[in-house]
Amino acid sequence: MQIAIVYDSGYGHTAKQAQAVAEGVNRVAGASAKLIAVADGDIDWDTLAAADGIIFGSPTYNGLISAKLKGFMEASTRTAWVPQTWRNKIAAGFTNSGAMHGDKLNSLISMALFAAQHGMIWVGLDLFPGKTNEELNRVGGWLGAMAQSDEAPAEVTPIASDLATAAHLGQRVAEIAAQFRAGKA
Amino acid sequence: MQIAIVYDSGYGHTAKQAQAVAEGVNRVAGASAKLIAVADGDIDWDTLAAADGIIFGSPTYNGLISAKLKGFMEASTRTAWVPQTWRNKIAAGFTNSGAMHGDKLNSLISMALFAAQHGMIWVGLDLFPGKTNEELNRVGGWLGAMAQSDEAPAEVTPIASDLATAAHLGQRVAEIAAQFRAGKA
Amino acid sequence: MQIAIVYDSGYGHTAKQAQAVAEGVNRVAGASAKLIAVADGDIDWDTLAAADGIIFGSPTYNGLISAKLKGFMEASTRTAWVPQTWRNKIAAGFTNSGAMHGDKLNSLISMALFAAQHGMIWVGLDLFPGKTNEELNRVGGWLGAMAQSDEAPAEVTPIASDLATAAHLGQRVAEIAAQFRAGKA
Amino acid sequence: MQIAIVYDSGYGHTAKQAQAVAEGVNRVAGASAKLIAVADGDIDWDTLAAADGIIFGSPTYNGLISAKLKGFMEASTRTAWVPQTWRNKIAAGFTNSGAMHGDKLNSLISMALFAAQHGMIWVGLDLFPGKTNEELNRVGGWLGAMAQSDEAPAEVTPIASDLATAAHLGQRVAEIAAQFRAGKA
Repeated sequence: MQIAIVYDSGYGHTAKQAQAVAEGVNRVAGASAKLIAVADGDIDWDTLAAADGIIFGSPTYNGLISAKLKGFMEASTRTAWVPQTWRNKIAAGFTNSGAMHGDKLNSLISMALFAAQHGMIWVGLDLFPGKTNEELNRVGGWLGAMAQSDEAPAEVTPIASDLATAAHLGQRVAEIAAQFRAGKA
Repeated sequence: MQIAIVYDSGYGHTAKQAQAVAEGVNRVAGASAKLIAVADGDIDWDTLAAADGIIFGSPTYNGLISAKLKGFMEASTRTAWVPQTWRNKIAAGFTNSGAMHGDKLNSLISMALFAAQHGMIWVGLDLFPGKTNEELNRVGGWLGAMAQSDEAPAEVTPIASDLATAAHLGQRVAEIAAQFRAGKA
Repeated sequence: MQIAIVYDSGYGHTAKQAQAVAEGVNRVAGASAKLIAVADGDIDWDTLAAADGIIFGSPTYNGLISAKLKGFMEASTRTAWVPQTWRNKIAAGFTNSGAMHGDKLNSLISMALFAAQHGMIWVGLDLFPGKTNEELNRVGGWLGAMAQSDEAPAEVTPIASDLATAAHLGQRVAEIAAQFRAGKA
Repeated sequence: MQIAIVYDSGYGHTAKQAQAVAEGVNRVAGASAKLIAVADGDIDWDTLAAADGIIFGSPTYNGLISAKLKGFMEASTRTAWVPQTWRNKIAAGFTNSGAMHGDKLNSLISMALFAAQHGMIWVGLDLFPGKTNEELNRVGGWLGAMAQSDEAPAEVTPIASDLATAAHLGQRVAEIAAQFRAGKA
């Protein structure tokens, strides 16, 4: 079972978050993560069509997903929306921004709407908000995994708890996708 | 398998939509809909805890779900959110308003956020937008089922296609909940 | 010139934030803040009709404004929306929640949509995100003033910078309302 | 007094809506509209810096503004956000999509958040929802001007009432910008 992670990253922070999501997916027996960076050019639509789940990731710039991730969404219209290729796949999202709140919710809402338009099934976090910087979900969101990066380079930030939160989302998506797949028989 | 439909209705239009959702649920073999009107007073939390899915419904007033449905949400905090009673249940939503657009999306987003906070899994529509008033999804939404009612009484409006869209959502939720349940074993 | 602050508060934290907004309003020469708690019962619609600006405040519970503030919104339909009493008044919003992010954005969006439906003019923050807990806008929002309160009582939280951010919003709304009023002549 | 209209258009429908907004601006004595299509390449940042108001326009694709308008937003970060060049300018938005609802609200919310991040002041519609296809605001939104275009070419659609709604927004923005400017003295 493959879970695709389609993401954009400006300076490496969201890429690091995507890597953490992938690690979470790979923790689940029988699940394998496939990372797709939209900046790498041609999208492998066949991988997406074959996946049991697709997780979307983007920095939040100007209170919204990046233009590059939006470009990917637009390219999906003809390829996947019209033929409903992604219908009933599991979907989820993650985002990173410089500020704690940073209007990150708007990015996740936009991903969830996009997924709904494709007839996908949306999975968020099942975590209480963390009370310290060391705890899971310290940013305090639920629609997807949020991270906060200051101006330090991607080697330093997002911090460990944000990456662990991203991994938790990856694992959760893989578990739910596996259950949903098993129920098909 | 039971799917609960928790809804508020001011003048009967959303109640009619809720009834259509229930009919859609009941089309699925082994699925049974349980309607819960928040205005009826004491919520049957046990029914909600036992359900495989919960569908939320509200009129959109002032660009948002009704105060009564919000009151239900607040009551759920202690009862269901803290013990994560609804974690991994299937969730969905529907709404009705007087205007075609009517900021209905904000009601559905608020329901989807609420469901995500409870660790639920969100299912929307898998329908293309209808091109005439007779077609499914003529309002053109995806995060949930939308209906539009003019000032006519609930006997006349929402129109048949909006009710059929609501029924489609109910059926879809029941099918997905059944598949997800089957995969648990 | 009067700026009304209509707010709900569950445990006193948002009331403290409302008080800070009022202090910000009162810093502006000729401006006077009028606090209206929706929980106090009968709304003074005449004060609202006479105000040059209305600032809405609510805790974010379940990712959304409180049922009580929503009840106020519904009551405004007949009183202010139909006769467009609030058209072209300045509007703004503030919210508080336990988690840093806490889906607070959804509360502010819902307030901004409500204001737009009334034909009001929306003013947010003009602050960069704070980088420490001592700086203004440390939560990092723009559509309105955000605060975060942990489980400590309202004597202790929200912290000083969140209250200063709320005061900044109050002052900003009063200044813009004064300029807009002066331009009417 | 100049009002800039920055827009993207895929097939000419949103361009036609932008033209209607411009006509509305030009109805106001002393106001002049300046249309800027982001697809034309280099943005005239000086015109934007000098304008009293900026109105943003985009098709809603995939439930969100176009990648091209988002690219413009990202380019504004260094040019206008960091130096707060647009602080206290009047802002507004319009959008067009194929479906009646079409999740257009999400595009307008994203524009309003973007404007708030720039410290701008947001103006929506002051119109009741139209009850027929001939009336203003027949789509029924308030945060900005909405239009619906079917697959017909831009010569035929959006229909007259949607264009009149766009013109109403342009006029309203120009009037409010004029009043706000007059109050500065």
